Amino acid sequence: MEAYLDNSATTVCSERAAEKMMEALRINFGNPSSLHMKGVYAERYLRVSRAAVAKTLRCREDEIIFTSGGTESNNLAIFGTVRKRKRMGKHVITTPIEHASVANPFSYLESMGYEVTYLPVDKDGIIDLHALSEAVRADTVLVSIMHVNNEIGAVEPIEEAAGIIHSKNPDTYFHVDAIQSYGKFRIYPDETGIDLMSVSGHKIHGPKGSGFLFRRKGVLIDPIILGGGQEGGMRSGTENVPAIAGLGAAAVDMYKDIDGVRKNLFSLKERFVKEILETKGCHINGKYDETSAPQIISVSFDDVRAEVMLHALEDRGVYVSSGSACSSNRPAVSRTLKAIGVDKKYLDSTVRFSLSPYNTEEEIDYAVKCVRELLPILGKFKRH
Amino acid sequence: MEAYLDNSATTVCSERAAEKMMEALRINFGNPSSLHMKGVYAERYLRVSRAAVAKTLRCREDEIIFTSGGTESNNLAIFGTVRKRKRMGKHVITTPIEHASVANPFSYLESMGYEVTYLPVDKDGIIDLHALSEAVRADTVLVSIMHVNNEIGAVEPIEEAAGIIHSKNPDTYFHVDAIQSYGKFRIYPDETGIDLMSVSGHKIHGPKGSGFLFRRKGVLIDPIILGGGQEGGMRSGTENVPAIAGLGAAAVDMYKDIDGVRKNLFSLKERFVKEILETKGCHINGKYDETSAPQIISVSFDDVRAEVMLHALEDRGVYVSSGSACSSNRPAVSRTLKAIGVDKKYLDSTVRFSLSPYNTEEEIDYAVKCVRELLPILGKFKRH
Repeated sequence: MEAYLDNSATTVCSERAAEKMMEALRINFGNPSSLHMKGVYAERYLRVSRAAVAKTLRCREDEIIFTSGGTESNNLAIFGTVRKRKRMGKHVITTPIEHASVANPFSYLESMGYEVTYLPVDKDGIIDLHALSEAVRADTVLVSIMHVNNEIGAVEPIEEAAGIIHSKNPDTYFHVDAIQSYGKFRIYPDETGIDLMSVSGHKIHGPKGSGFLFRRKGVLIDPIILGGGQEGGMRSGTENVPAIAGLGAAAVDMYKDIDGVRKNLFSLKERFVKEILETKGCHINGKYDETSAPQIISVSFDDVRAEVMLHALEDRGVYVSSGSACSSNRPAVSRTLKAIGVDKKYLDSTVRFSLSPYNTEEEIDYAVKCVRELLPILGKFKRH
Repeated sequence: MEAYLDNSATTVCSERAAEKMMEALRINFGNPSSLHMKGVYAERYLRVSRAAVAKTLRCREDEIIFTSGGTESNNLAIFGTVRKRKRMGKHVITTPIEHASVANPFSYLESMGYEVTYLPVDKDGIIDLHALSEAVRADTVLVSIMHVNNEIGAVEPIEEAAGIIHSKNPDTYFHVDAIQSYGKFRIYPDETGIDLMSVSGHKIHGPKGSGFLFRRKGVLIDPIILGGGQEGGMRSGTENVPAIAGLGAAAVDMYKDIDGVRKNLFSLKERFVKEILETKGCHINGKYDETSAPQIISVSFDDVRAEVMLHALEDRGVYVSSGSACSSNRPAVSRTLKAIGVDKKYLDSTVRFSLSPYNTEEEIDYAVKCVRELLPILGKFKRH
């Protein structure tokens, strides 16, 4: 049996998305900038995907900027904002539990003389809204808060955050990294008060190399990649038509019954969590009720190193992740686990299980069975 | 009959490249950063493509940075260099005939206080090497010269340029936009003295959204997209495994018999040029002998606007481009044609025909036949 439970690292591309891509690669392969029919046919994929994505967010089509993925979207939001707003100030706010594609741009800003405020988070990884309220100033150009944490599945109160930020300073831009939440949550950025929002395609059964930045109408940023002026001047380069076509198809699939997707994921999560809580030597990090993300469960093990567990599970066909797994082969200590105050002994003994609608109850049961069988065998595990 | 002669805008994805992509999308879909088998299988595509591409350039594998395409590669080379070398100086050199993805970054640098020297070009679009020699100074951080001009197919003397630049200032980086030459020329950047070189996948029957920057070992640049540290820290973001796999397959196909590819293209070009030269009302811009690019022919028409010709040809199944077509739906006056001193009346009467090894003699003959039939019918054409 096989159970791929590393869906927050990446997902398999859906058949429908892959088919759309093939069409755009082999048949309607034109350059959307070409004035002839081949260009027009290629451009249609962009229009269809843009409309599909906009519909999922209840936003305008011209608020979608297609990019090469979530990391580029985050970089465009952050660097695009500060470059555009040099005169407004040099203060920015974020959290200590962001993905590297937000955290590293902020470190870079710090090295360039920006003042960065890191909001405290509680033991479940939820940001302190009071601290946010205190932190926003006249010279705060940008606040960046992730919607769903990629390691423990904490869901941040982005709607409240948006209200606080804009009431303290209507000119401060609010960026949300929604890479782990898009496709699992109803998100309406215009209504919520989000100015910029990053999404990745390959986390929702779309292709790698696809993603977009939602940019609310009227929000002004500088592009970070210059050239032919595609995407309204915000992202130059021949549009990645196949990837955009695939992303659109994947978005439609995830949102045609988003409540069903959520219900399904929560039911799988609940099934998994119930068994894990009853398993000695297992500890779940953060919340795991319906206020948490439906697809992520972070489990710490007594006396078993994450990598050992990961490879033992792999031998049995269960694929999981140690830490966040998006940081290229660099097993660094998790900033998220540290920030929520996880006991030091668990920092390198924590595994992320992440689900997708493609997973089945049988896979969940199989993964639990494997964990239970492996725990007594592996490393220094002792029965209590 | 159909003749797609807009291959410098984009090419159809090869069957082999598309198959590799499907594999990486649907079967070996893992995240290369994942520590388990699915990650390892995905990473193999990166290794295979990196080795394949490095072989075509006779360079080291760690000199290849995969990007989302040619435009990003150009931006990374230019902005990556100037950001890294702020202390060395604020002088940069380029040409007036670069693609927008080089020209616009240089305009941006100008707006940031950089001094930009634009090298003069002759009537064939060839840069003045003497002027280059005069222009390189102690504070020149970067020279960027395209290998093959995308509009008229001029081939720049990059080997001589490299020698001149590095003899005048060994610390100046030399960047070459090889987007139109890779796959049609033998290019050995290490031997030639190129420090940075940009390549796009979709111009060589690889997928859109693929490309790379060659960066000679020891050449130091800053990344422009920060995050998980992929591509040796030079390009963060989950690697676009399918696109990279497709790019590798396409590169192998183009280079397994590069002399054959060139011979074939030159033979098609010669066939086309011979007939066009004998057609009244047609004028070829720049060189068209074996010192020109084998795949590009720029033709100006007497008294027929480019768009009119383009759409008339399109009606007959012949697809071409007016101007460079890489500038998103913005029919601006061609900087290249202006720079080589094309008569004003031809500026909006010039069409680019661009070939690929997929084209046939029959297609060429058909395109010529269409041009000849259309010329007397269209617009203000008068017989002499």
